[in-house]
Amino acid sequence: MSECGGINEKIGLVRIEKLNLDSGKVLHDVEQAYAMYGDPSDDCSNVVMICHALTGSHHLGGPDVPGLPPGWLGPLLGPGRALDTSRLCVICVNNLCSPYGSSSPMSVNPETGRPWGMAFPVVTPRDVARAQADVLDSLGIRKVALVLGGSFGGMVSLEMALSFPDLVERCGVIAAPARLYPQAIAFNEVQRQAIVSDPDWKGGDYYPGPGPAKGLATARMLAMITYRSEQSFAGRWMRGMSEGGPESHEWGAKFKVETYLEHHGTELVSRFDANCYLYTTRAMDMHDAAAGRGSLEEAFSRLNGKGFLAVGISSDILFPSWQVMEAARYAGKAGARADYEEIESDNGHDSFLIDFDQLDEILRFFFKQEHI
Amino acid sequence: MSECGGINEKIGLVRIEKLNLDSGKVLHDVEQAYAMYGDPSDDCSNVVMICHALTGSHHLGGPDVPGLPPGWLGPLLGPGRALDTSRLCVICVNNLCSPYGSSSPMSVNPETGRPWGMAFPVVTPRDVARAQADVLDSLGIRKVALVLGGSFGGMVSLEMALSFPDLVERCGVIAAPARLYPQAIAFNEVQRQAIVSDPDWKGGDYYPGPGPAKGLATARMLAMITYRSEQSFAGRWMRGMSEGGPESHEWGAKFKVETYLEHHGTELVSRFDANCYLYTTRAMDMHDAAAGRGSLEEAFSRLNGKGFLAVGISSDILFPSWQVMEAARYAGKAGARADYEEIESDNGHDSFLIDFDQLDEILRFFFKQEHI
Repeated sequence: MSECGGINEKIGLVRIEKLNLDSGKVLHDVEQAYAMYGDPSDDCSNVVMICHALTGSHHLGGPDVPGLPPGWLGPLLGPGRALDTSRLCVICVNNLCSPYGSSSPMSVNPETGRPWGMAFPVVTPRDVARAQADVLDSLGIRKVALVLGGSFGGMVSLEMALSFPDLVERCGVIAAPARLYPQAIAFNEVQRQAIVSDPDWKGGDYYPGPGPAKGLATARMLAMITYRSEQSFAGRWMRGMSEGGPESHEWGAKFKVETYLEHHGTELVSRFDANCYLYTTRAMDMHDAAAGRGSLEEAFSRLNGKGFLAVGISSDILFPSWQVMEAARYAGKAGARADYEEIESDNGHDSFLIDFDQLDEILRFFFKQEHI
Repeated sequence: MSECGGINEKIGLVRIEKLNLDSGKVLHDVEQAYAMYGDPSDDCSNVVMICHALTGSHHLGGPDVPGLPPGWLGPLLGPGRALDTSRLCVICVNNLCSPYGSSSPMSVNPETGRPWGMAFPVVTPRDVARAQADVLDSLGIRKVALVLGGSFGGMVSLEMALSFPDLVERCGVIAAPARLYPQAIAFNEVQRQAIVSDPDWKGGDYYPGPGPAKGLATARMLAMITYRSEQSFAGRWMRGMSEGGPESHEWGAKFKVETYLEHHGTELVSRFDANCYLYTTRAMDMHDAAAGRGSLEEAFSRLNGKGFLAVGISSDILFPSWQVMEAARYAGKAGARADYEEIESDNGHDSFLIDFDQLDEILRFFFKQEHI
């Protein structure tokens, strides 16, 4: 590790022989890409596991890595930062069904020799967590001081903690609920409809072709609305028009907010796979910590008195802060050392990728309180 | 008018020779369908004009009319009801760009002899209001005691009042802002993208073919999310699955909220035109009472001390109550007899089509206060 704040990143791949899924199906030879920053101590008491969101990857920070999106946790990662890699070992595993190196609908189905497409089994956040626990096992990591994630990553984090109580010592969820509410399922479903209605989707069998670019772009445009907020849009542009186009009363004229959405649609198409988008949004729909565990009360009792941090975002319209608070409340009722904090921001759901100053403070406080 | 509560409905069509649009363009031979309930008094002091929303029509209540959706204001319309047709004359004009009888992209472009499609000019709520004022003029209606509308109809109502201060004596807007905020523009744009990305849209030149059914259905699915609320979805179904489909871990399994959206998508496709949807959502985007009038302050000063009723909805995520309150605040500042009321409901934006008991009370109070 360089002393001038450099980050020592190791990227690797683990192959899991057999992964049992919640559906009862079994996946064989599952690949799981991961990134590791810093080194685990002998007792693994310094291991912090990060779970990434829908379109993110295991690459958290430091210099760009070809084929992976830029690190999304950069400002919090490195020597002296909240995730202090001079003393912590930070690990992030690429989610099952992500296009960034782990097994997904893009992978080859051994039965056909062709990409799985829609024949890939539907997975849940619990399945994603199970695959990541197998990665830790394979790396010899026997303890995780804290598993932490935002949005879909928060759902996977929660499932890591509830499914593997002997492995995980503390859990942190940011902008994620204990179970997906129907409005979020509805937003996901409209996004999926945009993709599967695109004739270039071809029932998911579009490889190696470009795939449903328009459908995926439309899906991302909608997602971006749910990731930000009215305050954020109004503060930036209000009703401003983009320049260089037709006059405002002509088709083709664009409000700045429209140009912004269009940009984000195109950007995602350049780096993400449509089937992976379908599978990960469906995994999100399936998120329910109570499933198969009787109730949320019983699910959270698996925390067994551990430290639980829930971070809501004041302007989040996708997973409103009351949903995150609900998770904290169940954790507290179940006897966990539950703490609820809130990021006060107009940036909406994406605040956890923007308002690092507040997250930095919240994490440092939690680390101190929990002696991590 | 029968004494047992029947409604005397007259449906008619007015042809306007020439309509000047905000874009500077001119439409000739504009058709405007309308419905009238009850008769105007000699001084027209009993005329209430209703403006309808995006996919509604001028048919407000009473027995169904072939080709028109069921009346959307039924419970408030009729002898003894809030819109008491035994003493009031209630008029509703079908919006320009609606598929229910007024000129629209479905109409024949006299220059080509074919449907206008996307060659139809972009219109604004002010244009829609201007066409409706021409209808009143043609019917000999010289005064309107109250113009009232919800959602897009509220925008048209506001423009009626601000554009025709000599005609309109009072204005009521329900679940509509004084100007469209960018999040609503964003939701509209995603809906339009779903439509124009559908290859069956064919650049808008799909007549008489079925048109972009999938795109329009997806647009409506998204719209329905914005018309309801998390509370409404969670209260009805939470995470319930629809029966009769595959197991929950299979593609094709549906949450009840997904089935609900699908139903509403299909329903709209059976009765609405995709180009009309594009034009009306764009008209909504263009809504800005301040446009061409200096500022919102100056715009509302045109009310000239008149009665102004703004009705927000507590759970509205499309046009949140603070936006409706903003309109009331500007009206009050400008010296109008401004009143803000709120429908307390979990039904979201669509509450104005559902919670008639509250609207009934609000309207009766306003009518009494304003001596209508």
